[in-house]
Amino acid sequence: MAVKLSPPENLLAVAGLQTASGSAGLYNTARDDLALFAIGDGAAVSASFTSNRFYAAPIAVAKEHIKRNNIRYLLINAGNANAGTGERGIEDAVNLCKTIAGQTDCDFDSVLPFSTGVIGEYLPVDKIIDTLPALVSGLSDNNWLGCAKAIMTTDTQAKGFSEQFEIDNHIITVTGIAKGSGMINPDMGTMLAFIATDANVDKAVLDKILQSCVRNTFNRICVDGDTSTNDACVLIATGKTSMHRMTDSDDHTYTLLEEKIRDLCLKLAQAIVRDAEGATKFITIQIKNARNEDECIKIADALSTSPLVKTAFYASDPNWGRILAAIGRSRIAGLDINNVCIYLNDICILENGVRAVGYTEGQGGSVMQEEEILLCVDLNRGGVSNEFWTCDLSHEYVTINAEYRT
Amino acid sequence: MAVKLSPPENLLAVAGLQTASGSAGLYNTARDDLALFAIGDGAAVSASFTSNRFYAAPIAVAKEHIKRNNIRYLLINAGNANAGTGERGIEDAVNLCKTIAGQTDCDFDSVLPFSTGVIGEYLPVDKIIDTLPALVSGLSDNNWLGCAKAIMTTDTQAKGFSEQFEIDNHIITVTGIAKGSGMINPDMGTMLAFIATDANVDKAVLDKILQSCVRNTFNRICVDGDTSTNDACVLIATGKTSMHRMTDSDDHTYTLLEEKIRDLCLKLAQAIVRDAEGATKFITIQIKNARNEDECIKIADALSTSPLVKTAFYASDPNWGRILAAIGRSRIAGLDINNVCIYLNDICILENGVRAVGYTEGQGGSVMQEEEILLCVDLNRGGVSNEFWTCDLSHEYVTINAEYRT
Repeated sequence: MAVKLSPPENLLAVAGLQTASGSAGLYNTARDDLALFAIGDGAAVSASFTSNRFYAAPIAVAKEHIKRNNIRYLLINAGNANAGTGERGIEDAVNLCKTIAGQTDCDFDSVLPFSTGVIGEYLPVDKIIDTLPALVSGLSDNNWLGCAKAIMTTDTQAKGFSEQFEIDNHIITVTGIAKGSGMINPDMGTMLAFIATDANVDKAVLDKILQSCVRNTFNRICVDGDTSTNDACVLIATGKTSMHRMTDSDDHTYTLLEEKIRDLCLKLAQAIVRDAEGATKFITIQIKNARNEDECIKIADALSTSPLVKTAFYASDPNWGRILAAIGRSRIAGLDINNVCIYLNDICILENGVRAVGYTEGQGGSVMQEEEILLCVDLNRGGVSNEFWTCDLSHEYVTINAEYRT
Repeated sequence: MAVKLSPPENLLAVAGLQTASGSAGLYNTARDDLALFAIGDGAAVSASFTSNRFYAAPIAVAKEHIKRNNIRYLLINAGNANAGTGERGIEDAVNLCKTIAGQTDCDFDSVLPFSTGVIGEYLPVDKIIDTLPALVSGLSDNNWLGCAKAIMTTDTQAKGFSEQFEIDNHIITVTGIAKGSGMINPDMGTMLAFIATDANVDKAVLDKILQSCVRNTFNRICVDGDTSTNDACVLIATGKTSMHRMTDSDDHTYTLLEEKIRDLCLKLAQAIVRDAEGATKFITIQIKNARNEDECIKIADALSTSPLVKTAFYASDPNWGRILAAIGRSRIAGLDINNVCIYLNDICILENGVRAVGYTEGQGGSVMQEEEILLCVDLNRGGVSNEFWTCDLSHEYVTINAEYRT
C-alpha cells in the first residue's frame, strides 16, 4: 500500500554502535519484535518525546534516565505500548532496564526503554526478559535492517536511510530507522525514530540539532491527527570519527552536520507518510507568504486533518471548496479570502478567492490522479513559507483501524 | 442509515409565519430544493452564522440584511452553496433578494438568503428566479414538512420537531427544521436550522435566547471536524400569541421559553448527528468535573474528531487506549492521568489512570455493540460538566465523501 516507498536494501554501520534484533513472541505471527542498541563510551544521546500528556510508562522512564547523560543501551519492543498501565507499567519498564544492566554491567538508568503497539495491556515482561540474553549476545556492528523490521507495527514496510558525507575531509556516516503509520500528527515529539552518527558532538549541541531537525521534519507530518502516547526520536552521536569534537553551535561544521541529519530525518518522516495506514496518495502541503510559522502550521493542520479534504484526495476529486473551507476554519486572524490563491502542482485553481480564469475540472482532476501531489496555498500576506506532508483517507484506513485489535 | 431517527410526521404551524417549498431543478433528480418563509409584521428574528472565515456569499448578504431588523422573508436553496464565488456570488444572492422584494412589495434587504450544497460553483440564479413566482403564490400556513425536505443535501432524513407548552396560561408553539449531515463541527454558528415560535419577544431578548441555545446544542455536535462555509441558525418569534411581550431577560417567563427552545434545538442538533454521513453509532460524550467549560470543549473536540476513536466505535471495539491518547493530546494544562476515570455507559473501564479492577473486554464490547453509547470522562479536578454528541467513522462515510461530486 505504501506510496512510492521501497524498503531499505542496505544500511550503513555507524562506528561506536552495535545493534541486535530478536523475537519475544509478542505477536501471534513469527516475526521479530525486539531491538537493542548498544552505544559505545563517550557518545552523546539526545531524545525528543511525545507531547501527549498520557505518555506511556517507557516514556516516563526514558525521560528520567536521559537526564543522567550516560546512555549505553536502547531497548525497543513492538506489539505492546505499555501505556495506560499505571505504576505497574513503570515497574515493568524499569525491570527491563535493570535486567539489561545486570547482563551488561552498566547502571540501570543508562538504559532507555521504548515500546510501541497496543495501548492498555500490561507488558509481557517475562517473555521479553527470557529473550534478553540472546539479544545481548547477538549484538553486532550492523543489524540496522533487522532492527528496522523489529520495531514495525501497522507499518507495511521497514523504514531506514543512510547518508555518508565529508566534513573537514573526515567521512561521516548517519543512519536512521523509524516506524509509524497511524496515530501520527505534527504536534509531538514524533513516532519512534532512532538515528545515529559517528560524528563527534557535545550533548548540548546534539540537543539543539535534534530539536531543529524534529521541528522541520517529524513534526510536520500528519496521517490522522492523532498523537501517540509513545512517540520518541533519539539521536546518537558516537564520536568515533576522527573529526574534531563539536562543542558549540558556532562551530564551522555545525550547519553542514545539521543539514545532513535533517535530510535524513526528512526522508524517515516522509517514509512514515508514504506508508501511512491505507494511504494511496502522498501529499505535500506548501503554505506560502504567511505572516509567521504559526499561520502555516494552523492551516496545514486544518488541511491535513480534514476528513473531507482527505477523502477528496482519495477520490482524485479536485474539490477545492473543501480545501477552502478547511483553510477558513483554521483561525487565522484577519485572513482575507480575496488574497488567497490555491495550486494543485502547477495548476492555479483558486485565484484571489475565486475560481481561476480558464481553470477546468479536467486540469485539476488529472493532477489528482497522480500518487504524489503538491497542494500549495498562497496567503499573500507575509514572507513566511513552510512545507508539510500528509496522505489521503481511504476505505483501507477505516478497515485497518476498525480491525486493529480483532 | 440514520441512528434511531424517524422523519417528522407532523409539524405544527406557527401563527404569523407562512412556508412554501418548490423545485428549481438544482439536482438531477426530481426533488424540491427551494424553501421560502414569509414572516408577519412585528416579528423578531435572530440569526447565528458560521465562524468559518471563508463564509459563503449568502452569509455575507444575510449578515448585512439582518442588521436592519425588519426581516420578512427567508429564501433557502439546496444543491449549491454559492461559496467561493466572489463578487458574482454576492450579486447573485442580492439579485434573489431583489426578485422576492419585487414580487412581495418589501425591501430587498428584508430578505435573508441561505444556500447549501456544492462549494465553488456559481448559483444557477435564472433557474431559481423562474421558480420564485410559484413559490410566493404557494405560501401556506403549514408547509414545514415540505421545507424540511427541500433543504436536505446528504441528509437521509428530513429533520423537524414541534413543541407546545403553556406560559402564563397562553399556549405557545415552537417548530424548527434543520439540515446537516457532514462538515459538522462544534466551532461554528452551525448548519442550517430554522426555528419559529409565536411567542412575543423583543429582538434583543431573542438574540440572547438564540446565543444561549446554540452554544449548548448545535455548537456541541461534531460529525467530522469540518466547519461549513454556509452554516446558519435562524430563530423567529412572530409575536402572534396573546401572551405579553417579553422585553428583557429578567422577565419571569424568560427561563421557561429559553428552556423550551433549547430542548427543540437539542433535538434538531442530535438529529443531525443521528443522520451523520455514514453513522452507525450515536455517541454522547460527557465530560465531568473539569475546571471550566473550555476544558470540556477541548477534550470533547479531541475525542469527536479522532479518526482512531471514531473507527473504534465503528468496530464496536472498546479500545480505551485510543480514548486516553485523544484526551492526552487535548492540551489541558496540568492534566493528571492518575485522576482520570472513563466509563462506557455504566461500565468503568479506566479508574484513576489504569484499567479498572474487574473490568473485562467483554463488558466493554457489549456496550460498544449498542447503537447509542454514553462515553463519560471524569477528570476529577473541578466542578464543571458538559455534554457533547458525535458519531463513528465508517466505510460509508468515506464512500459518501469520495463520491459526493461524481
